[in-house]
Amino acid sequence: MQFELTREYIDQLKRIIEEKDEAGAIGMMDGLHPADIAEIYDELNTEEAKFLYLLLDIDTAADVLAELEEDDRDRFLKVLPIEVIAKQFIHRMDSDDAADVIGGMSEEQQEEILSHIGDIEQAGDIVDLLHYDEDTAGGLMAKELVMVNENWTVLTCLRELSRQAEDIDEIYYVYVVDDDGILKGTLSLKIMILSPTSAKISNIYQPDVMSVHTDEPDEEVARIMEKYDLVAIPVIDSIGRLMGRITIDDVVDVIRDEAEKDYQMASGLTEDVESSDSVWIQTRARLPWLLIGLMGGLISAFVISRHEGDLGNYTAMAFFIPLITAMGGNVGVQSAAIIVQGLASNSLGFESTISRLLRELMGAFVNGIICSGLVFIVNLFLVGHSFSLTISVSVALFSVIIFASIFGTLIPLTLHKMKIDPALATGPFVTTLNDIVGLFIYLSIGAYFLSFI
Amino acid sequence: MQFELTREYIDQLKRIIEEKDEAGAIGMMDGLHPADIAEIYDELNTEEAKFLYLLLDIDTAADVLAELEEDDRDRFLKVLPIEVIAKQFIHRMDSDDAADVIGGMSEEQQEEILSHIGDIEQAGDIVDLLHYDEDTAGGLMAKELVMVNENWTVLTCLRELSRQAEDIDEIYYVYVVDDDGILKGTLSLKIMILSPTSAKISNIYQPDVMSVHTDEPDEEVARIMEKYDLVAIPVIDSIGRLMGRITIDDVVDVIRDEAEKDYQMASGLTEDVESSDSVWIQTRARLPWLLIGLMGGLISAFVISRHEGDLGNYTAMAFFIPLITAMGGNVGVQSAAIIVQGLASNSLGFESTISRLLRELMGAFVNGIICSGLVFIVNLFLVGHSFSLTISVSVALFSVIIFASIFGTLIPLTLHKMKIDPALATGPFVTTLNDIVGLFIYLSIGAYFLSFI
Repeated sequence: MQFELTREYIDQLKRIIEEKDEAGAIGMMDGLHPADIAEIYDELNTEEAKFLYLLLDIDTAADVLAELEEDDRDRFLKVLPIEVIAKQFIHRMDSDDAADVIGGMSEEQQEEILSHIGDIEQAGDIVDLLHYDEDTAGGLMAKELVMVNENWTVLTCLRELSRQAEDIDEIYYVYVVDDDGILKGTLSLKIMILSPTSAKISNIYQPDVMSVHTDEPDEEVARIMEKYDLVAIPVIDSIGRLMGRITIDDVVDVIRDEAEKDYQMASGLTEDVESSDSVWIQTRARLPWLLIGLMGGLISAFVISRHEGDLGNYTAMAFFIPLITAMGGNVGVQSAAIIVQGLASNSLGFESTISRLLRELMGAFVNGIICSGLVFIVNLFLVGHSFSLTISVSVALFSVIIFASIFGTLIPLTLHKMKIDPALATGPFVTTLNDIVGLFIYLSIGAYFLSFI
Repeated sequence: MQFELTREYIDQLKRIIEEKDEAGAIGMMDGLHPADIAEIYDELNTEEAKFLYLLLDIDTAADVLAELEEDDRDRFLKVLPIEVIAKQFIHRMDSDDAADVIGGMSEEQQEEILSHIGDIEQAGDIVDLLHYDEDTAGGLMAKELVMVNENWTVLTCLRELSRQAEDIDEIYYVYVVDDDGILKGTLSLKIMILSPTSAKISNIYQPDVMSVHTDEPDEEVARIMEKYDLVAIPVIDSIGRLMGRITIDDVVDVIRDEAEKDYQMASGLTEDVESSDSVWIQTRARLPWLLIGLMGGLISAFVISRHEGDLGNYTAMAFFIPLITAMGGNVGVQSAAIIVQGLASNSLGFESTISRLLRELMGAFVNGIICSGLVFIVNLFLVGHSFSLTISVSVALFSVIIFASIFGTLIPLTLHKMKIDPALATGPFVTTLNDIVGLFIYLSIGAYFLSFI
């Protein structure tokens, strides 16, 4: 059953480790899934984690290593001898996990580890996988799969399966290839069980099979598996030979990462930072956006300073600067987020930019009328500002809402066409741009209306 | 192979439909996956979609109905007679898809549809599923699964499988139950194939099986399946009886929705809106946040108006209002986003709020020094503002960065403790709060320094 990590559990475990109570520590980890142990490691310091690690049986240890988050794993691999890593862990891992672990190391370390792996076939698989870019189907796939020849009978298949399946946790699909290794289709275990043992595979396999090329981007793989509800997808090379397979659990991470990347960009973070990361890493992720905001603020200061005379005469104009900038920013981010999500989920369809913009403008018109109307009523009747100030603020607010929704719609679409991540448009970059344009509109309109006083 | 929907394809299809060319339309849809046809429907109007729909063979039609997005499906079900829906489509669907389709209808419609379903067992399954809350394991699960008794032999199993498996697309796990229907474990197809036909199931099944209760929230189901890399998970009732199973493809949607919800909140959208939604739906999703921003802007106006005298004397103070509010907003959203992501991915661990806050403050200190230092240099040496204005702006900026990072860290943690979605803290609500506090700090500091002139 699932295990829930609690503060009490960690405290008790730390106490037991401090007392070097091996039996107690083994008892506490008894029956835990490798993913649970990996979660526990995240809460321990390197010494504590190492103590626990050496108590695990070798198979569990390899699984835990595969489950660890990358920074925990790196911290960990540093304290273990290369030979132990190679012989005890890498040797027991699936090829994709092994390639991930080794891929993070220096070239010398990689060579040393590979030289310690006795199984030439496994070492070859790992070397093959290291060639692929991390963000492609080749980088996601594992070499372990169950493959049968279309010319075999069900009986031969069953014998081969029992041989091949030894290394594999779970069979989702059996892939059918021809004599050249070209992927022909899949064989359902269900159909195989129900067919006579003398049946030929070529007569019972399903020839229609979705597959991806090794160089397909990982986000595209995720999109295909999600759309067609696939649990695993075979990966082929440019002439159609079966190279490996990707399972859904690897793709779930891609889907989550992709969605989180948009959120990070909208929040002004340049990279994946965690609350537990060092001050330096967090600063590096945050500072670039802050500097953009800073530059925008200085440009805004310049825009306002051009109207120093007007402000001197009508100080009350300054009161509404935050209202204008905030509303421009909010509307722009909303418009951009709708487009960014549509692009991410591929649901924008083929509506033309013009008709999209027109619908957006109608919405902005409604929101603009409501917001500027409310501000008009508050300013004129509740607070009692002058009519010219009231009308300036409301007209400016309405214009800013219209402009911000145009920008918010067009910028992500343009970025997307230029092959730049459109999520950039929901971040501080565009908020800053909207601030400046909004101020310019407000002060120009204000100067016009107030000049009549 | 995968199908890529193009503008040209849609245009051609629309032309063919207009000409009522049935053979042409069937030709164009030949070999397409139901998910592809569902994607095409999204681009057609109801009449066009209905024309195509009536050309599909019945099995494909049922699959397409299950793949359609909810609003397309509702639009569609309205134009088809209830009896057709029941006998041709619902009857052919998996129980979870059928319950989803029926769940969106009125109670009378539900009863009418159920009365038309001949298969009592299927109707019963659907009625059972309708009882569960949509956001729970019960609402996600399907009744279709392969179940064997622990007392059977492999031979009995194989016979039963061929009977049960008829209705099921793909077998991922065979579940083992006792005579009372209590879930005991899983049986790997691999092991079954490799075991003698006389072997007893109780000797070869794996007793450790992850399962969830029917009332487990869907986000928790997603978390468990993701953590333990599961392709399917059995659902049990409160006494442990096997009730259904959830497959990963249903959970992928939950994971994506969850990540998108955070993004929407950060972008100031109250509900899931799409670019193609009507102006009214979009306005409804956007207006609440805009009104919060509006109120914040009016409060800001009030805060500034308290310093009307100072502003009248030192107009240049108004120049930096956008800089202060923008930087406060950006820093606050960054801090909050780091916490929100940590909470969402369950990776915050057990660090205390105090130590988290201290690390956040160190980061804010570094960013604050860099930003206010840069502004100081620009203002004093490049632009040539007065020393008292320069020092006011830099001291205020530094203070605002510190305050915003405290707020940004504490507010999501507090919301989470109060069981409110912490993502609220990255939305316009907190940006607005930061605007007001930032202005208050800036104007107070400015009034203090400038009073020395």
